[in-house]
Amino acid sequence: MKAWLSRLNADLSFVPGSPEELALYDLSRALPDVSFKTEIVQDLGEGYRIRREADGSFCISGGPTGILYGAYALIRLAFAGEELPESLSSSPRYSLRMLNCWDNADGSVERGYSGRSLFFENGRLQYDPGRMRELGRLMASVGLNVLCINNVNVHFPAQLLLEDSLGDAASLADLFRPFGVRLMFSIDFSQPMLHQIPTADPLDPAVQAWWKETAASVYRSIPDLAGFLVKADSEGRPGPFTYGRNHADGANMLAEAVRPYGGFIVWRCFVYNCRQDWRDTKTDRPMSAWDHYASLDGLFADNVILQIKHGPFDFQVREPLSPLLLGMKKTNLAMELQLAQEYTGHQIDLYTMMPMWQELFEELPENNIMSLAAVSNLGRDGNYTGHPLAAVNFFTYGLLAWDPKTDPAAAVSQWIRLTWSFPREEEQKLSALLLSSRRIYEKYTAPLGIGWMVNPHDHYGPNPSGYEYDVWGTYHKANRDAVGIDRTAGGTGFILQYPDSLQKKYEDPETCPDLYLLFYHRLPYTFRMKDGRTLIQRIYDDHFEGYADTLAMSEIIRSLPFPEPDRSVIVSRMEMQLHNAKEWCDIINTFFRRLSGADDLHGRIIYD
Amino acid sequence: MKAWLSRLNADLSFVPGSPEELALYDLSRALPDVSFKTEIVQDLGEGYRIRREADGSFCISGGPTGILYGAYALIRLAFAGEELPESLSSSPRYSLRMLNCWDNADGSVERGYSGRSLFFENGRLQYDPGRMRELGRLMASVGLNVLCINNVNVHFPAQLLLEDSLGDAASLADLFRPFGVRLMFSIDFSQPMLHQIPTADPLDPAVQAWWKETAASVYRSIPDLAGFLVKADSEGRPGPFTYGRNHADGANMLAEAVRPYGGFIVWRCFVYNCRQDWRDTKTDRPMSAWDHYASLDGLFADNVILQIKHGPFDFQVREPLSPLLLGMKKTNLAMELQLAQEYTGHQIDLYTMMPMWQELFEELPENNIMSLAAVSNLGRDGNYTGHPLAAVNFFTYGLLAWDPKTDPAAAVSQWIRLTWSFPREEEQKLSALLLSSRRIYEKYTAPLGIGWMVNPHDHYGPNPSGYEYDVWGTYHKANRDAVGIDRTAGGTGFILQYPDSLQKKYEDPETCPDLYLLFYHRLPYTFRMKDGRTLIQRIYDDHFEGYADTLAMSEIIRSLPFPEPDRSVIVSRMEMQLHNAKEWCDIINTFFRRLSGADDLHGRIIYD
Repeated sequence: MKAWLSRLNADLSFVPGSPEELALYDLSRALPDVSFKTEIVQDLGEGYRIRREADGSFCISGGPTGILYGAYALIRLAFAGEELPESLSSSPRYSLRMLNCWDNADGSVERGYSGRSLFFENGRLQYDPGRMRELGRLMASVGLNVLCINNVNVHFPAQLLLEDSLGDAASLADLFRPFGVRLMFSIDFSQPMLHQIPTADPLDPAVQAWWKETAASVYRSIPDLAGFLVKADSEGRPGPFTYGRNHADGANMLAEAVRPYGGFIVWRCFVYNCRQDWRDTKTDRPMSAWDHYASLDGLFADNVILQIKHGPFDFQVREPLSPLLLGMKKTNLAMELQLAQEYTGHQIDLYTMMPMWQELFEELPENNIMSLAAVSNLGRDGNYTGHPLAAVNFFTYGLLAWDPKTDPAAAVSQWIRLTWSFPREEEQKLSALLLSSRRIYEKYTAPLGIGWMVNPHDHYGPNPSGYEYDVWGTYHKANRDAVGIDRTAGGTGFILQYPDSLQKKYEDPETCPDLYLLFYHRLPYTFRMKDGRTLIQRIYDDHFEGYADTLAMSEIIRSLPFPEPDRSVIVSRMEMQLHNAKEWCDIINTFFRRLSGADDLHGRIIYD
Repeated sequence: MKAWLSRLNADLSFVPGSPEELALYDLSRALPDVSFKTEIVQDLGEGYRIRREADGSFCISGGPTGILYGAYALIRLAFAGEELPESLSSSPRYSLRMLNCWDNADGSVERGYSGRSLFFENGRLQYDPGRMRELGRLMASVGLNVLCINNVNVHFPAQLLLEDSLGDAASLADLFRPFGVRLMFSIDFSQPMLHQIPTADPLDPAVQAWWKETAASVYRSIPDLAGFLVKADSEGRPGPFTYGRNHADGANMLAEAVRPYGGFIVWRCFVYNCRQDWRDTKTDRPMSAWDHYASLDGLFADNVILQIKHGPFDFQVREPLSPLLLGMKKTNLAMELQLAQEYTGHQIDLYTMMPMWQELFEELPENNIMSLAAVSNLGRDGNYTGHPLAAVNFFTYGLLAWDPKTDPAAAVSQWIRLTWSFPREEEQKLSALLLSSRRIYEKYTAPLGIGWMVNPHDHYGPNPSGYEYDVWGTYHKANRDAVGIDRTAGGTGFILQYPDSLQKKYEDPETCPDLYLLFYHRLPYTFRMKDGRTLIQRIYDDHFEGYADTLAMSEIIRSLPFPEPDRSVIVSRMEMQLHNAKEWCDIINTFFRRLSGADDLHGRIIYD
């Protein structure tokens, strides 16, 4: 990421006064041999229209940020070695293209694998302005326009962003404004209680008044704040349930407070029983978001957005689309992705997400949602993403949020070209490798949609029963005969939360796509897959293949001409991935062989 | 513990000048109606002789600390409500009766369940002198005479005890001297390398010189320091292996440095491969101490003591005696116990250790060892042990180290009487409960000597496969048919490290005592126990019984007249133990039922 940013050749101490000024500045430094002029057309908003004039110069029309996005579109093309086109126009599919940072005020980053926070240290905002302008470019160059800087788990003193630290936050908002980036803050639903108000009940007048006053004060300092992000009644966070209110009550109260300023309340739907008894087979965690929210459809204010994780669990390698994304037609929805590789290799293992995102949009009609959000994978590491190749997820996420029809292969190739100048053959090798990396990771980890066989808390590395007797509602219940949870109508009934077409697609194990088989079904190890293999043999095969594929990836990685310092990091992390893949492969196979007693048909080693 | 200390009625600001002065002071406050005189008889050393004179007064003869131990013996009898005898004499079985504190310089305590360190805070010695004098009485009153104040894992800056903090350490040694307590320090084998010496090789002259000079400096400040405690080449600690030397080389080099001052090197034998590959079935961790040390028998200097954990693993609920304790006849040995309830309930669950210790001495000839050591269970909590009933382990350990023939029931009863004045019936109930508590804990945790089914790192609560695919060498390899590691001659051969008589006792699963069955043998679930039950049924039965017994204990606990503040702590921890016992019972039974497919013969609920 750093590599292609440096090609912009920008002086990071330069303070742009507006997106237009920034556009012209970056164009002049990045493409000094080409002339550009700009034309503000307010109606175009964030969209742009570019045409080549007779004199060879380019005219970029657009709203103020539209011009900026047009400029970066040209720069991306040019840096990728493509001919600049005669004309080019585009506008974003979603108006809010959000990055959620899980940064704590103490400078740590929850699920951060790229160093400490870019924004915080010692309980307060503390940042390098030059890096902020680099981050602004990172976001603007791929069209991201909302930056939530603090963790959805609001640990004290992060609350002070709305209070004592508001001045500092306003300075940061000023810094990002020319980049078309609006700030957002995660808030603590119980924050009024830090001010002698004995309740956080959303229907309590004192609470409502406190939020109105606070919103007024915040918006005086940051008039274009995108709004507040809220994680309520989830994993120990306070929320409306404490007071017998529902989440529409909670969200609408806050929405009322920010409405005068055009602000949004982004309300996360990550609510489930995180103190579940493992003995309780009635409760099925994937059903919880629907159970909590579906009946509230139509009750949310028009400046509330429900932010829904893409799957019904929590960013597992393979989950079906969250049914809530299909079922709330009268509510503003955002889909939440996770760039941070929490369950997907900690930015050690290669895991390019674009193919996964494409699969989501195969079932999700584009207009079911009005926004995309992604948990950031950025941190204070020199290269921003810890692993240089993890940057592809940041880049392609931006393109996806602009246009969910973005072709994964084209987006990945563009990123490679922007980042390194590889010969075409090497570029294609790397592109193919990146595009295959998710499936490879999937093969050597938990089988066929079952998820959760990771080390608890840390979420790196295999632990087949790490969550099996825990409180998190994530069980596989593997025994000597069978594995998985029956989520069909005859089981927990989760599948009934889907439209008929999807129920039909998944409800019959004979026709359910293999990769989702153990998400929806409990099956004996002797179950015959569509290709004739038994389930247990398929599990073994996938794991041996996953490790073999990783070995092959490591050969390719070593052969590619990455420059330093990237090369050392990439090669050493590949070694770690190889070790991890071997552990996963052997441990999962041993786990299932101990249970099933089945030998591998091909006589490969499965340890006792 | 606090309760009976307070009956001593001592002014903690009183600074005794000698053990004799302390003895007379404490006798005068504790037993004001009786007259005492003392008579130093150097030959008696730590022993004492007491006789009642014609005038009803008592004369206590002994070496300086012998007089002190005699005084406390009388006070214990009196506080326990017994007649003071006409005469009484005793001397300790072992000359070094050691308490090992795993306290870190930052004030944390490794495996501490009683609050922060009594000695350290903020990287330096920092203590309450009054509490130190209370601790001195705690130790002296049960005959303990060596206090190692810092963790065997020496984290910086604990090394400074030998350097910058030596003056403070000397003051602490002065404080403890009248209590007959000599300090000991855990040292970092690589400490010379903090001083521009490029190696810690024990055969390097510069290293030898550094330790000699350092020992000279330390002994100038603390002439009666008991010596140094060393954990070398273990779990990441540096040691002689780095330099191709053996542990006799390492220990003898240090022994030479402290020899002029009468100091000891206590060298821990807790050495094993803590990066084991779980696939490796050749390596069997319990064999490692023998493999490292047995061949060195006779090579250690006479002021070296090898400190050997009582079992070959690491303080599990049920382990056989470490074979090393039986096999090194030409070496000074100490047996290491652990009062801190690391694997035995974290001072939440009741676990009285005396019955376990008695079992150890059934196989260990008293004169095989010359010392006992125990990892401390003390901390800064008001009652010192977190759980008021955990104090029984500290108390009885002292009596055991003085006389390994101490009767467990008598020792436990004496502790109860010293601590609370219960009616005889309640006292007997509590005594029976405490004496049964270890077997109850054993029943609901890992079955029949298998150990290690705990949550990793934390070591509280069940996790049947938590260590199964990890690097620690602690595997059960349970599969659908069988469980356990074969450690007989036909298996790993561990059993061959024992004398013939013990080999015979354990080698045949048909005659091996049930409680050690899965320590030595890998057996099918269908194995018939001596009483006719199958192995799997025995596992189920033990777990259901363990929980039922805990329920019964909780009824008794609630019925007993504990005074506050003890009562609240005891009752609330009993609730936690009940929850823990239920989790263990259900999870272990479910784990084995998933594997074996066997139903409980009595139709009790085993969850799916």
